[in-house]
Amino acid sequence: MKAIPSLLVLASLLAGESCLVQSAEPVDDWKPATSNQRGKQYPQVNSEGRVKFHVAAPQAHNVTVSFRDSSPFIQGEDGAWTGITRPLDEGFHYYTINLGGAEVPDPNSLFLFGANRWGSAVEVPAHDQDFYALKNVPHGRLREVLFHSKSTDSVRRAFVYTPPDYDQDLNPRYPVLYLQHGWGENEYGWGVQGRANLILDNLIAANRIRPFIVVMIYGMTNETPFGGLRNFDIRPFETVLIDEVIPFIDDNFRTLSDQPHRAMAGLSMGGMETKMITLRHLDKFSHIGLFSGGNIRPEDIADMAAFKARNKLVFVSYGSREERGATAARESTDALKQAGIDSHYYESPETAHEWQSWRRSLYQMAPLLFRN
Amino acid sequence: MKAIPSLLVLASLLAGESCLVQSAEPVDDWKPATSNQRGKQYPQVNSEGRVKFHVAAPQAHNVTVSFRDSSPFIQGEDGAWTGITRPLDEGFHYYTINLGGAEVPDPNSLFLFGANRWGSAVEVPAHDQDFYALKNVPHGRLREVLFHSKSTDSVRRAFVYTPPDYDQDLNPRYPVLYLQHGWGENEYGWGVQGRANLILDNLIAANRIRPFIVVMIYGMTNETPFGGLRNFDIRPFETVLIDEVIPFIDDNFRTLSDQPHRAMAGLSMGGMETKMITLRHLDKFSHIGLFSGGNIRPEDIADMAAFKARNKLVFVSYGSREERGATAARESTDALKQAGIDSHYYESPETAHEWQSWRRSLYQMAPLLFRN
Repeated sequence: MKAIPSLLVLASLLAGESCLVQSAEPVDDWKPATSNQRGKQYPQVNSEGRVKFHVAAPQAHNVTVSFRDSSPFIQGEDGAWTGITRPLDEGFHYYTINLGGAEVPDPNSLFLFGANRWGSAVEVPAHDQDFYALKNVPHGRLREVLFHSKSTDSVRRAFVYTPPDYDQDLNPRYPVLYLQHGWGENEYGWGVQGRANLILDNLIAANRIRPFIVVMIYGMTNETPFGGLRNFDIRPFETVLIDEVIPFIDDNFRTLSDQPHRAMAGLSMGGMETKMITLRHLDKFSHIGLFSGGNIRPEDIADMAAFKARNKLVFVSYGSREERGATAARESTDALKQAGIDSHYYESPETAHEWQSWRRSLYQMAPLLFRN
Repeated sequence: MKAIPSLLVLASLLAGESCLVQSAEPVDDWKPATSNQRGKQYPQVNSEGRVKFHVAAPQAHNVTVSFRDSSPFIQGEDGAWTGITRPLDEGFHYYTINLGGAEVPDPNSLFLFGANRWGSAVEVPAHDQDFYALKNVPHGRLREVLFHSKSTDSVRRAFVYTPPDYDQDLNPRYPVLYLQHGWGENEYGWGVQGRANLILDNLIAANRIRPFIVVMIYGMTNETPFGGLRNFDIRPFETVLIDEVIPFIDDNFRTLSDQPHRAMAGLSMGGMETKMITLRHLDKFSHIGLFSGGNIRPEDIADMAAFKARNKLVFVSYGSREERGATAARESTDALKQAGIDSHYYESPETAHEWQSWRRSLYQMAPLLFRN
């Protein structure tokens, strides 16, 4: 099959759209992405963070990818279509392939849940990827836990991370972090694309944190259309978490079940949930983390004296590319500090509202948890 | 967009190919498949076991699905393509959508690992689906376990099922079943499409089995091209299982670690592995299960007296549509019985070399394990 530029390619060449992207030749050090299915050679990533796709679609008339500013896809003699993205930020990105108007996952990619569907994603190697790498260190365990929720009359799934020693020494009890995903995601997020288990395994192996249990449940956020957050009702999730999940976890795992040993954190809409729930349940949570998910200002706190007496940590983070949120969070952190709260701000360099920011946020927050 | 029959549709209509499939109108009681992603209305399944697809691909020129004898896909006015399969067997089936020559997963389906890739599958409700249904009963836990394998110098993944009481009463020790997937599959198979955890949860809730631990690891089968099984070398996997995984599991879980309390079973190529390994390690395994994966004849056993002294169960099963294997397995089961072995044969009604046969096989074998 001969390579015939499609109309769209010609149109975009005429419009000069692709000249910018294509002006400098991409660096030719392509490697298969680590997010590929086993044995798949594409997509590939180069040292600039560009991603090259190769989609076998001999009879297709047009192929595109959801990354903006990608080069037009060109069909090669083998019938496969090749396209290259602009340099992407370090870390993890969801994407979709469009084939004949159909939005489909890339068959070469592993499938992860985001944007409300299981679909494709690509991992652009980060300069600091070592902290979430799979290494030959003692590993904790991620378990799928099925529990009945009375308030929703459903069997629900949680993932629970237990530290490496949990199953070997049956005596110690551990603090617990309740860790929430964002809108369009679910309870798989932190254990799969978030790599929470590997981040904690590595921190524990380096003796940099106090080992703790992590509980990841579905935040019931996806019923709310994006942009409709003002109408979000926290109560159904609050009931599941406070009245059902926490007692279940304390019954079924060797937890330290008092307030000083319970934390909650979340990303994006999970941060919003964390803020709403922890401020209403000072008696249940001592440590609070919001990752790209708002901030806590002194005026959010109804009774500052009570908060100071019970809260041990407010940790807020943003990606440096999330400018508005980051600026507000720096300010709120300073204000909380002045009010005498142990308040921390972290900014992930050159990342946006994406998982690399949140992996780094967990990595930064974990050493601050349960220190006394 | 107007519905224009594609050339292929016209060709197949002219050839009369689709007339047979389309002659009787499908029963109009379509329901979204339980294997769909949350909120997706298609694919749908009817009471005949037909599957109806609906693929949004406005600019595509042809859409097909990998189920043979499906009706040609017709594009509707909304640009989406609809096609219907023949009546399929009860249970779980992998499939692929073809769009413009590209083999892609159906974006509406959950993604499962089979045929050497993460891809689409559809669940056709079975008359006996209750035994693997998610119910409000006490649930065991499936944990992801990462361990270092010295012989392969890699960190490998296992899934370990522990029974409902495992984390609550920390005293009892449990027997262990090592349970293998087939060629083109991996360690996820039994816990995801196999529903091993739900099958055991339900059997335990009904007090029909002695609770046991299940260990699911990658059988290292996918490096061998299908059809090249004669050249399959069992030793690398045997080393991982016998020298690395079993000691690791006995160190890290509350197992009964003696031979009478250790079983091995597998499906298809995993059955072949089970046979090879258990016959060479009578001192390690007392119970053997082969699901659509060959059989054990008296002449396979080197020392019948030793085997009779140590083996507690040989369980062999096939789907009724696997005629050759089923016939041979019936014969070998009788021959073993005559030799004094506790030998059982089970045949899954009206299923082929697919997961419904294997779910039923686990369900049938589990009550026979570890009875004394």
